[in-house]
Amino acid sequence: MYDNLFYDKKVNALFSDKATVTYMLQFEAALAQAQAHHAFIPHDAADAIAEICKIENIDMVKLIEDVRLGANVPIPLVKQLTTLKPQSSSPNPANKYVHFGATSQDVVDTALMLQVRDAVEIIVINVNIVINQLVFLIENHRETLMMGRSFMQQAKPITFGFKVATWLDGVLRTKKRLLYILKENFTVQLGGAVGHLSSMPKIGFEITETLGGILKLNTPSLSWHTQRDRFVEISTTLGILTGTLSKIAKDVSLLMQTEIAEVFEPSGAGKGGSSTMPHKRNPVSSIALLAIAQRVPPLVSTMLSSMTQDHERATGAWHAEWETIADIVKLSAGAVRHAVEMTNGLEVNTDQMLKNIDCTEGLIFAENVSLALSSKIGKAAAHELVENACKIAVLTKKHLKSVLREDKNVNEHLTDKELKACFKPENSIGLCNVFIDNVLKNV
Amino acid sequence: MYDNLFYDKKVNALFSDKATVTYMLQFEAALAQAQAHHAFIPHDAADAIAEICKIENIDMVKLIEDVRLGANVPIPLVKQLTTLKPQSSSPNPANKYVHFGATSQDVVDTALMLQVRDAVEIIVINVNIVINQLVFLIENHRETLMMGRSFMQQAKPITFGFKVATWLDGVLRTKKRLLYILKENFTVQLGGAVGHLSSMPKIGFEITETLGGILKLNTPSLSWHTQRDRFVEISTTLGILTGTLSKIAKDVSLLMQTEIAEVFEPSGAGKGGSSTMPHKRNPVSSIALLAIAQRVPPLVSTMLSSMTQDHERATGAWHAEWETIADIVKLSAGAVRHAVEMTNGLEVNTDQMLKNIDCTEGLIFAENVSLALSSKIGKAAAHELVENACKIAVLTKKHLKSVLREDKNVNEHLTDKELKACFKPENSIGLCNVFIDNVLKNV
Amino acid sequence: MYDNLFYDKKVNALFSDKATVTYMLQFEAALAQAQAHHAFIPHDAADAIAEICKIENIDMVKLIEDVRLGANVPIPLVKQLTTLKPQSSSPNPANKYVHFGATSQDVVDTALMLQVRDAVEIIVINVNIVINQLVFLIENHRETLMMGRSFMQQAKPITFGFKVATWLDGVLRTKKRLLYILKENFTVQLGGAVGHLSSMPKIGFEITETLGGILKLNTPSLSWHTQRDRFVEISTTLGILTGTLSKIAKDVSLLMQTEIAEVFEPSGAGKGGSSTMPHKRNPVSSIALLAIAQRVPPLVSTMLSSMTQDHERATGAWHAEWETIADIVKLSAGAVRHAVEMTNGLEVNTDQMLKNIDCTEGLIFAENVSLALSSKIGKAAAHELVENACKIAVLTKKHLKSVLREDKNVNEHLTDKELKACFKPENSIGLCNVFIDNVLKNV
Amino acid sequence: MYDNLFYDKKVNALFSDKATVTYMLQFEAALAQAQAHHAFIPHDAADAIAEICKIENIDMVKLIEDVRLGANVPIPLVKQLTTLKPQSSSPNPANKYVHFGATSQDVVDTALMLQVRDAVEIIVINVNIVINQLVFLIENHRETLMMGRSFMQQAKPITFGFKVATWLDGVLRTKKRLLYILKENFTVQLGGAVGHLSSMPKIGFEITETLGGILKLNTPSLSWHTQRDRFVEISTTLGILTGTLSKIAKDVSLLMQTEIAEVFEPSGAGKGGSSTMPHKRNPVSSIALLAIAQRVPPLVSTMLSSMTQDHERATGAWHAEWETIADIVKLSAGAVRHAVEMTNGLEVNTDQMLKNIDCTEGLIFAENVSLALSSKIGKAAAHELVENACKIAVLTKKHLKSVLREDKNVNEHLTDKELKACFKPENSIGLCNVFIDNVLKNV
Repeated sequence: MYDNLFYDKKVNALFSDKATVTYMLQFEAALAQAQAHHAFIPHDAADAIAEICKIENIDMVKLIEDVRLGANVPIPLVKQLTTLKPQSSSPNPANKYVHFGATSQDVVDTALMLQVRDAVEIIVINVNIVINQLVFLIENHRETLMMGRSFMQQAKPITFGFKVATWLDGVLRTKKRLLYILKENFTVQLGGAVGHLSSMPKIGFEITETLGGILKLNTPSLSWHTQRDRFVEISTTLGILTGTLSKIAKDVSLLMQTEIAEVFEPSGAGKGGSSTMPHKRNPVSSIALLAIAQRVPPLVSTMLSSMTQDHERATGAWHAEWETIADIVKLSAGAVRHAVEMTNGLEVNTDQMLKNIDCTEGLIFAENVSLALSSKIGKAAAHELVENACKIAVLTKKHLKSVLREDKNVNEHLTDKELKACFKPENSIGLCNVFIDNVLKNV
Repeated sequence: MYDNLFYDKKVNALFSDKATVTYMLQFEAALAQAQAHHAFIPHDAADAIAEICKIENIDMVKLIEDVRLGANVPIPLVKQLTTLKPQSSSPNPANKYVHFGATSQDVVDTALMLQVRDAVEIIVINVNIVINQLVFLIENHRETLMMGRSFMQQAKPITFGFKVATWLDGVLRTKKRLLYILKENFTVQLGGAVGHLSSMPKIGFEITETLGGILKLNTPSLSWHTQRDRFVEISTTLGILTGTLSKIAKDVSLLMQTEIAEVFEPSGAGKGGSSTMPHKRNPVSSIALLAIAQRVPPLVSTMLSSMTQDHERATGAWHAEWETIADIVKLSAGAVRHAVEMTNGLEVNTDQMLKNIDCTEGLIFAENVSLALSSKIGKAAAHELVENACKIAVLTKKHLKSVLREDKNVNEHLTDKELKACFKPENSIGLCNVFIDNVLKNV
Repeated sequence: MYDNLFYDKKVNALFSDKATVTYMLQFEAALAQAQAHHAFIPHDAADAIAEICKIENIDMVKLIEDVRLGANVPIPLVKQLTTLKPQSSSPNPANKYVHFGATSQDVVDTALMLQVRDAVEIIVINVNIVINQLVFLIENHRETLMMGRSFMQQAKPITFGFKVATWLDGVLRTKKRLLYILKENFTVQLGGAVGHLSSMPKIGFEITETLGGILKLNTPSLSWHTQRDRFVEISTTLGILTGTLSKIAKDVSLLMQTEIAEVFEPSGAGKGGSSTMPHKRNPVSSIALLAIAQRVPPLVSTMLSSMTQDHERATGAWHAEWETIADIVKLSAGAVRHAVEMTNGLEVNTDQMLKNIDCTEGLIFAENVSLALSSKIGKAAAHELVENACKIAVLTKKHLKSVLREDKNVNEHLTDKELKACFKPENSIGLCNVFIDNVLKNV
Repeated sequence: MYDNLFYDKKVNALFSDKATVTYMLQFEAALAQAQAHHAFIPHDAADAIAEICKIENIDMVKLIEDVRLGANVPIPLVKQLTTLKPQSSSPNPANKYVHFGATSQDVVDTALMLQVRDAVEIIVINVNIVINQLVFLIENHRETLMMGRSFMQQAKPITFGFKVATWLDGVLRTKKRLLYILKENFTVQLGGAVGHLSSMPKIGFEITETLGGILKLNTPSLSWHTQRDRFVEISTTLGILTGTLSKIAKDVSLLMQTEIAEVFEPSGAGKGGSSTMPHKRNPVSSIALLAIAQRVPPLVSTMLSSMTQDHERATGAWHAEWETIADIVKLSAGAVRHAVEMTNGLEVNTDQMLKNIDCTEGLIFAENVSLALSSKIGKAAAHELVENACKIAVLTKKHLKSVLREDKNVNEHLTDKELKACFKPENSIGLCNVFIDNVLKNV
């Protein structure tokens, strides 16, 4: 129902039932190939297995029906495979050697590794697009003045380029983490019934290494049936990614408020509009991304709590992972997709940004005046003077600059030019450009 | 993929895309009917709307594709409805009056209420089956002696009937909670754009009441677009249900351990067996139930945290609920289904239970002897004597009874019959039957 | 450190180490009293136990140090108690009969029930204050016009009284839930080693009933050492309370935004201000309440997942509850405290509310005009006319009313008075007062 | 109350109120030093600030009381500091320059970084102890035969050394992660009001670098007030650590079951025993560790969901982190402490392990016989023969080996020696030693 709202179509496709089984078949074929390579099974068996391990051979309805019997997919899948006959050979060596010496969890874990890896690779591509789009925004908005806000209160002016640079800084670190897990975490699983490969005497570890090579997965020191940190770290990293992107959505949704109106998600045909309320422009991508960010962290919690596994194969904790990690990956991919959509052509209303800087009628610049006066009349006196002026400005609804202009003490110590300078936002943006450059260096 | 493992087919069917849209169409038709009843729209419009609001009229592919535009289903759904023409009437009054004065959230929330209610009703039916099966087990095992265990250590004997009574006690309370939410929480949503039904002047609340009547949902004091406690309480109640059932699964899985072997899930064709390990009998239903119980609590956390909603329609927090509550309901239904399967014909190995009582060679009865001796030789002396006897029993690997029998002091103060009585488990089951009766009274 | 920020002092005091132990001592004294009542122990023993069970007799440092040995407090606590001598009697019967036949979990669970009940009673008192303050706000702001907002976009006008009524509606339902759990969930625990009270033959259940009576706790059908739904339901109810209150905090914090400035937390000496930024008024209570609402739901998740308990005493899942439920109760009490502070003297800037209604220059009233014209020129033509006028208004930055005024078609069909009526917010507040009355009826 | 049960004393001490404020004072002193280094403030000011920034100068009671006013500690802390006078200098330059240009979040975040870093360093020391103790166990138990179990059912024999190697494998990876975050994640925070250091014109970034150098923290590209991934990654890493250790606790608690009795936590004076149940030996450290592992994941979820932060300073999401990350760090330290205690002198009952291997009366070796016969009589025939023998063994309660011995077909094809070999567990441990060596290589 919500495939097109909370998700990314390409990644969702990788997690369809058929795709999932296809990854499992890929494992079985590669295992046979590795075993044949080490002369553990005949080469014609490996060929025959490769031939039968095709998704079109599988009765998906029956498979899904039978999952309940053994509480996993490989048991009924292998049962189906053993009944299949390759056209090329007779008698059928596939029958005898398919899944030889492996255990269900070897299939499930390795297939999931392949599946998640393919998804993470799509995610990284999209993260790179986000990065490029953020760089573009920074370059276009280095000088765009806007209010910085703390606790949703106006604080001091910043530039929009600086704000985007803080977004980018987070995204860059998370990209680094994604590349790290792509390198470190994707690992083959092969252990047999209790992990020690008694079913592949002597040559088991070599077969594992070859299998890893075929599937382009790392080879582990030993099987990790009940050591789940790799999947968990993938999950936490995607959780951090989603969190990082949700910060962008949070800012955009707040900036799109009717009364603030500084930034808008790019409009598309029919997107975010309302036929009965022509003024509305709903932050559709932000909404989706914020919803995703609400959902992913508790799913990560499930992955972490599922690490408490018993003995050599866990009674439930393993099974709790399957749909959970799939949801984490799919939702995170959806988050990135929305970040791509949102940052591609984000509309920036620079006029409104300036207008909002002025909405407190100069109060946000009070500290500047205080500092400018300090060197002339002392810190305490300056503070008191400005504090009073602020009160008058609020009560009389006049601009602080006017109130101050009319103050004798100010007139005495600050020229009109000096006073005006205190109220120029461009004088209050600190090291925005230094920081922007720091971040851009890391791209 | 796992429809048949973690879920209940009937409940899953209620949450298919088509079923979801059907509930939404039911809302639109009922709304028109209620509005016609109060002469707010013409009767022929209501009839025409009833005619077009059929799932076979909806282009599901296009609908799902368009969900992204407005971040919900009703916008594209109503767009489709306004293009449909009823055969019975010309001109088409449906077009003009469908979804009249309602907002998307009215549709989504009310449809979800209907959907979840239907699911909870199925769940209650299955909970009743669990209750009946537990009563049956209690009645059959009032006298079945087994070890009670604390911290997974043998503690003192209990009866299996008593253990099942503690299960039942929890299930009965949760059933009460389910009936309570069925009565209190299922409520219609109708508020229009910002909740005050400005689109249905004067007669809005009456229409809401009539609509509630048609759909057999409660009428709220006012619309609850951003007051989400009702859905949350449904979620927490299902969370408690799942937790309660998972305690049964935990016990069963522990009792099914090869070394304990006291209780077994009912066997079914091909269920839980292993072709290569003939001795294995995997606790398949327990596994599924424990996995579900691992997953539901964090989903409830999402529902709770989604209560922090902004203004009159939430920016993401509402959207985060949709798939989350669906998952909670579907997984909880799966938990109940497994509880039904597990308790229907649970195999109880009473011999093994007795054997396990004896596995500490009498040590678990030490306190009984200590108490029996206390009245004769004083508490301190009795305690010391028995403590020493226990040490000797462990060191010499002899039964405690034999060690004690050979002790002069024991011989002096306890007859053989008295000593034997200390080691009879049936003398150590306390008020098991009183408590069983207490629980059965509540059925 | 944050006792005074995230918490309520009174409730925190109930959870100090000393208070916790005091509740445990209360259990031991009441147990002895109940046992003496049923002639299960001598009356002078009960008196002696009452005398020694005083917090000033306990060596807290040693107690806390020794908690690790048995992984709970009662074991070292009872050990201390057995060494204490009452002044009144010699020999000491306390020694022999203290904690007689009880198990550690009986103490911990019952004491926690007492502790949490005292806390919930304080919470209910404060919830009542919140309710009264909300009623006051509603009565004062029945006619206060403001914008309703969906997805943080201006939608249609409402009244502030109506908004507060939606807050109140949620709080009232949650108060009902709190009263329900106060009545149903607070229950004594007494089971002995494995729950069947073999240590109190025959009379055990009567002792439990008497004990419940003394402590004003319900008597359970049987001990609930591993049936944890009662504590969990208390937790979920407090989670719902916190969520309900956080919705108020969310609205207030959004309405306090500098650019919106419609509502302000009551100011207090030094609260929320900033010495260097005189214009700032930080939403301090909202911040605290939102932080609490972020933290409570995952703690509820822990309580739910801890329901999966093994056998007759759980190996870790029970222990995971202790600090978790204490945190839930304490944080929820803090949430209520902030709700009390926030709603007591909430400042409402009605001028700014009106000003914000006008910030789209009439666009939010477009639908009203469309409806008014429909009856004259037909729906389609009216819609097209208004849509064009909106576009012109946005492009020319003129008020929609002026644009429409200049339109020939409008002039022809709508009088000036009729047109003006379309733009009056008080004409667009629907059934606000009906709904307000519905809610107030439930107070 | 539970300081000594769920926590590590040393780490808890780092999180006392006084310690927390001490870290904040360390920040203020170092900031002044860095600013003086760059001639941004006078050197005597820095000296004076260093002098006053001592914990004994702080009125902790007043500080904690005042936290509520600004919703953080630094506001009242700096207020106290500005009233303090250093003895060494008059007039007091500290007053003027303390906290100069910094914002509260700079203090809180940097202090927390220092605090958590000190804690993680203690954690790493203890992880190293766990590693050494696991290596010791592996070396002692390379040849110790025991049952491997899947779904808590006996599966095939393994060695205890192999089981411990799988524990170690997980711990080693997590240690690597801890070292990585120690290197990458601990970073100084300095941004001023909105992050751009307008308060330290030009030289702000250099001051940040110097400050980082003084505190031995990394310098960020820019301030990260609302980019929280660093704290989150520390949290997820500690979550993975706790999960990894909880797997050990799970295994130990299961192996300590009375009926299994293969492994025991080291006993200590009074630890885990029960005076009334002499046979009990409660898995106290496992209990504590499992309870911790139940609690940490939802806390990590809070950290992840707190990443959705608004603008330049978050309204609640930042505040939600404070006690949450402290709890994560403290509980994780407690987990490691218990892992140290548990693995130091873990008792291994090798006899019982052998006995348990035999508890199915040979059934677990059925597959070995089947394989041995396959080459002689074909796979299908062998499988059928053995399956029948298993059924007979179960029905007649005889050992499988005896049943097979009496089978004509077996006698014909397998010598007594060959048959016996099938039942020797040491022939069924696969590549245990290969995998052990792989893991030990990574130490």
